Amino acid sequence: MYRYKLIVEYNGTPFCGWQRQSGVLTVQQCLEEAVQPLTKDLVLINGAGRTDTGVHALGQVAHFETDKLLDAFRVQECMNAHLAELPISVLSVEQVDKNFHSRFSAVERYYIYKIVNRRSKLALDINRAWKVLKPLNEEKMNKVAQILVGKHDFSAFRATGCQSNSPVKTLNSISVERFSDQVIVKLAAKSFLYHQVRNIVGSLQKVGTGEWSVDKFQEVFESKDRTQAAATAPACGLYFWKVRY
Amino acid sequence: MYRYKLIVEYNGTPFCGWQRQSGVLTVQQCLEEAVQPLTKDLVLINGAGRTDTGVHALGQVAHFETDKLLDAFRVQECMNAHLAELPISVLSVEQVDKNFHSRFSAVERYYIYKIVNRRSKLALDINRAWKVLKPLNEEKMNKVAQILVGKHDFSAFRATGCQSNSPVKTLNSISVERFSDQVIVKLAAKSFLYHQVRNIVGSLQKVGTGEWSVDKFQEVFESKDRTQAAATAPACGLYFWKVRY
Repeated sequence: MYRYKLIVEYNGTPFCGWQRQSGVLTVQQCLEEAVQPLTKDLVLINGAGRTDTGVHALGQVAHFETDKLLDAFRVQECMNAHLAELPISVLSVEQVDKNFHSRFSAVERYYIYKIVNRRSKLALDINRAWKVLKPLNEEKMNKVAQILVGKHDFSAFRATGCQSNSPVKTLNSISVERFSDQVIVKLAAKSFLYHQVRNIVGSLQKVGTGEWSVDKFQEVFESKDRTQAAATAPACGLYFWKVRY
Repeated sequence: MYRYKLIVEYNGTPFCGWQRQSGVLTVQQCLEEAVQPLTKDLVLINGAGRTDTGVHALGQVAHFETDKLLDAFRVQECMNAHLAELPISVLSVEQVDKNFHSRFSAVERYYIYKIVNRRSKLALDINRAWKVLKPLNEEKMNKVAQILVGKHDFSAFRATGCQSNSPVKTLNSISVERFSDQVIVKLAAKSFLYHQVRNIVGSLQKVGTGEWSVDKFQEVFESKDRTQAAATAPACGLYFWKVRY
């Protein structure tokens, strides 16, 4: 058997997320259908992370296995031709060792969350960012975010339906930076709980607007109680950035 | 009479450019219709620059005049409500002196041209950037671009149909920078010839790929002959960034 690693960009807006489900359009299904003309048999495409409906990817990583020896460049060209009408692009394909697994071999996953901080509606960033009306203090957001770095029980930011065995995760880094009216949150961890990034951003926003004090944020985090935390930030602001192996 | 200045963002993809024309959707017409419920009479909205079909704006500036004294904040809110279904956003409105003219008072105009330099198709940047397949040497592009700075005859980069009295323009600055697979060209001048930015980018790209030497670019520029220069870069990569008054 031969194994191939894909790096994939997509605009999540028209998709019901990554994972194949009957009756709806998903990224996984579109990729599987795009590789089938080459592999002949239907192959399963495994992703490094299951993005939700409306979540975008700059560098999702996936792999598949086939008994056909394929030319990596040809796989990329054929898949992109097949995906011509869809906002999915295969950025690279390489043949990898059979021990490589897009999900289980990942050492670090990176996410970006994009906020546009202004009153007026979004013309260019509609479905690509979360519009937050109240002025955000990004320095305060960045400072309070640092208490999340390290190994912690993230129950306060864990969605119901999370399939992880434990709420304990290690956040390697988080930063909040402003570029004009954009406030960009970047996060890195080996793995994340379900909705962890969006729940963190939702609560950081409360600190940014001044509705929550730094102490309140810390209390919420330490409560380990999801009902204490703020609402989940919208899916459209989230970008699965890249994966390190 | 009262005069109001608008700053406007738009995604140019669905529009036949800025300027009102019968039978097609244009940004100017949409703005004029959005302000009419407030002014009652149809007012002319003057833009700082007439963008072409598919060209975007981050901060187009426009003004209109009316005999009604309006609250600037209310103008912004009403216009954005009226524009809800369109990718146009009024970022700010302020009452200005009757001597202010969006076009004639402009001291400096800024444009950004966005290239994505890769082989694979664009998923997130479709209609928002020019995809250039061959690897670009952005340092070489930046270096050769500097010969354009200053007061010159830009005939080589002037489109037929240009309504300017003279092909002589002063380019205040130009830079070419790479951010991962994006190559960003930024330009500033009091005013530009028709298609000047896109024609400059088209020829810079030839230097970036190595098809043209630095000497060849200089020769083309000095020939003052449009037919010597490269093809016009696509509209979708161009962003009218901002105007200084």
